[in-house]
Amino acid sequence: MSEYLIGLNCRECGTTYEAEPRSACDECFGPLEPTYDLERIRAEVSRERIEAGPMSLWRYEPLLPARRDSLVDLGDGFSPLRRAERLGAELGLHELWIKDETRNPTHSFKDRVVSVALTKAREFGFDTVACASTGNLAHAVSAHAAHAGLRAVVFVPSDLEPAKITAASVYGATVVAIDGTYDDVNRLCAEATEEYPWAFVNVNLRPYYAEGSKTIAFETAEQLGWRTPDHVVVPIASGALLTRIGKAFRQLDAAGLLREESNVRVSGAQAAGCNPVATAFEAGAEEVRPVRRPQTIAKSLAIGDPADGWYALQECRKSGGAVAQVSEEEIVEAVGLLARTEGVFTETAGGVTIASLAKLAAKGVVRPDETIVAYVTGMGLKTLDGFGAAFRPTRTIRPTLEDLGEVV
Amino acid sequence: MSEYLIGLNCRECGTTYEAEPRSACDECFGPLEPTYDLERIRAEVSRERIEAGPMSLWRYEPLLPARRDSLVDLGDGFSPLRRAERLGAELGLHELWIKDETRNPTHSFKDRVVSVALTKAREFGFDTVACASTGNLAHAVSAHAAHAGLRAVVFVPSDLEPAKITAASVYGATVVAIDGTYDDVNRLCAEATEEYPWAFVNVNLRPYYAEGSKTIAFETAEQLGWRTPDHVVVPIASGALLTRIGKAFRQLDAAGLLREESNVRVSGAQAAGCNPVATAFEAGAEEVRPVRRPQTIAKSLAIGDPADGWYALQECRKSGGAVAQVSEEEIVEAVGLLARTEGVFTETAGGVTIASLAKLAAKGVVRPDETIVAYVTGMGLKTLDGFGAAFRPTRTIRPTLEDLGEVV
Repeated sequence: MSEYLIGLNCRECGTTYEAEPRSACDECFGPLEPTYDLERIRAEVSRERIEAGPMSLWRYEPLLPARRDSLVDLGDGFSPLRRAERLGAELGLHELWIKDETRNPTHSFKDRVVSVALTKAREFGFDTVACASTGNLAHAVSAHAAHAGLRAVVFVPSDLEPAKITAASVYGATVVAIDGTYDDVNRLCAEATEEYPWAFVNVNLRPYYAEGSKTIAFETAEQLGWRTPDHVVVPIASGALLTRIGKAFRQLDAAGLLREESNVRVSGAQAAGCNPVATAFEAGAEEVRPVRRPQTIAKSLAIGDPADGWYALQECRKSGGAVAQVSEEEIVEAVGLLARTEGVFTETAGGVTIASLAKLAAKGVVRPDETIVAYVTGMGLKTLDGFGAAFRPTRTIRPTLEDLGEVV
Repeated sequence: MSEYLIGLNCRECGTTYEAEPRSACDECFGPLEPTYDLERIRAEVSRERIEAGPMSLWRYEPLLPARRDSLVDLGDGFSPLRRAERLGAELGLHELWIKDETRNPTHSFKDRVVSVALTKAREFGFDTVACASTGNLAHAVSAHAAHAGLRAVVFVPSDLEPAKITAASVYGATVVAIDGTYDDVNRLCAEATEEYPWAFVNVNLRPYYAEGSKTIAFETAEQLGWRTPDHVVVPIASGALLTRIGKAFRQLDAAGLLREESNVRVSGAQAAGCNPVATAFEAGAEEVRPVRRPQTIAKSLAIGDPADGWYALQECRKSGGAVAQVSEEEIVEAVGLLARTEGVFTETAGGVTIASLAKLAAKGVVRPDETIVAYVTGMGLKTLDGFGAAFRPTRTIRPTLEDLGEVV
């Protein structure tokens, strides 16, 4: 048991549970979230204690639902927060930062949630871990399971990028490709939790798993000198990353760890080909209506029926942010823009985030005077197929100075 | 000018030069290397000073030929040194460590040499940087140049993995694909230095560039508590990485930074399809005879006429190491073995290193009682083509529990 963890709490009706492998409320089927003894954290946990911790997400152990005794860790998190001066200049933003998640062990932010979920799985005594994935999660689960000597079974849509399938298989995981969408994969996994005694990290361990996402915000604040940014731009897949970022900033505030009061505007980013939250935001709707057949190169965001979609919508609205949606062409252009200006090569999902940032900046939603952080959640070599004919060689020549003279 | 840099020195005849953009001796055409005032370093640079430095390779600035004024840095180096217990158990080695270079900004050790070379290029006043590359170097040069706002022109063989070409083009570099081998590419670049006022990082800036490789050994020693390992296994492409690792351990010793005397056995790793140094080692030959047509999936090691091949051979012989060569099948198997045991997914070149380590361990050259470090120099998503039909999904099924029951 984590030092400050109290138990699980239903986000809807408030029913409390012990910290066990369970994701939904028996009373109302609402989602469950860990609760912590924030009073004690406030009294006992200082910025100095955290700064003296490991150079990984585990420096925030007091605010996580698992503890380091049974740690599954490949050196996750504590990724660079880069000042993006050249990109900021292109977009007319004076203080833009990029949180560079390509530097994680399997090169996406999913390493965070997996490190927390597998540590908890080991604490619960599971020997097999599983997940429903759009690719990055399968990669992260397979790598961490291999490192820890756990068995892994990962479920992905069969139309996934080949790179992401190899990046799970290579670790010896059982990779089950499903003829269907991510939502079909997810449904099958929910059914399978009844049949198999496995830790499905984003199903029966979801409350613990999702907490790993908070660390990306904890680090952001610490790296800004224990201050929160004015505005963050976050990609929306299931919506869990966005909602946990909002929650994490408030939790830091409640724990007395910030130097200034926190007031963060949270904006979301989606591809036009899978835009349920963006559509609800634009329409001023209360309900997030599922997209039946997601069609986008940003496959890691292709969740048509996002579990935390409604909560993500509320977070953006209440905090004064917005949700943007961008076309396939804008995604590819934005991947190139980020690479050319900052030297960071992101996957298509990161293109969605940067293109959305650009769109929100052009509209004046993201403002020039704000301290802005954009979350670049995964790396480009995972989604080469998505880039199509972009980013090819300039020219192929014979090895002579004559031929070279014609190119440069 | 770097604080402790004296100038360049010919490795063959000892002629000295000022620190300028130049790679070969006017007298004897021998290669040039930076020399440092090791007496002053010994007197002025402590372990504590280094430990208080940045969490990047630039903590070793006193032993590098460039200084941080004109720094080009994406957060390079200081990669994890992982204790590899599960892999060690498979190979019968009690204390095996993996230096995990997949964690660098562009996911290979080339970020080290590029950070140093581009910093020096900026100090010299160049506005265009160039390189001859088997892929990883092109990626690293393009990314760092983009970040620094420098123009990049990179030269690669036209049969390179598409992933590596995209990973240079995306940053806006001019990517010139050459119909020929790496050695043809290299020759063209050597000619082009006469025609174009560019910083060719591994041609006219080669003495500075190669020094970046030393940092991988500096870190190894620091991470082992300022002690050197008993045995290291290093892949050989040009041979520069291997020779600089040997040199770096001796330099730390000479600078008084180690807690114990250093005596490191250095072994090399090559693919059987491009094995000039391994062949010379096995034959007990004095000369390294070029391989005209390298044929291997380990394209980043496919240098048939390695510039530092002879020096690498000497380093392995004199230190009591060996040079192994491994087949294509062994390379792919070793990539899987490392992933399954340690959760690290390496490119084909890393497969060469791990397969060579296994071979040397089986022969008793690498011994069970030694502290061993294997250098995993790049990541697996860069060489997916090389893996062929390995690492595919276990099965594709419909989203039903029935179908699932047949798989697991």
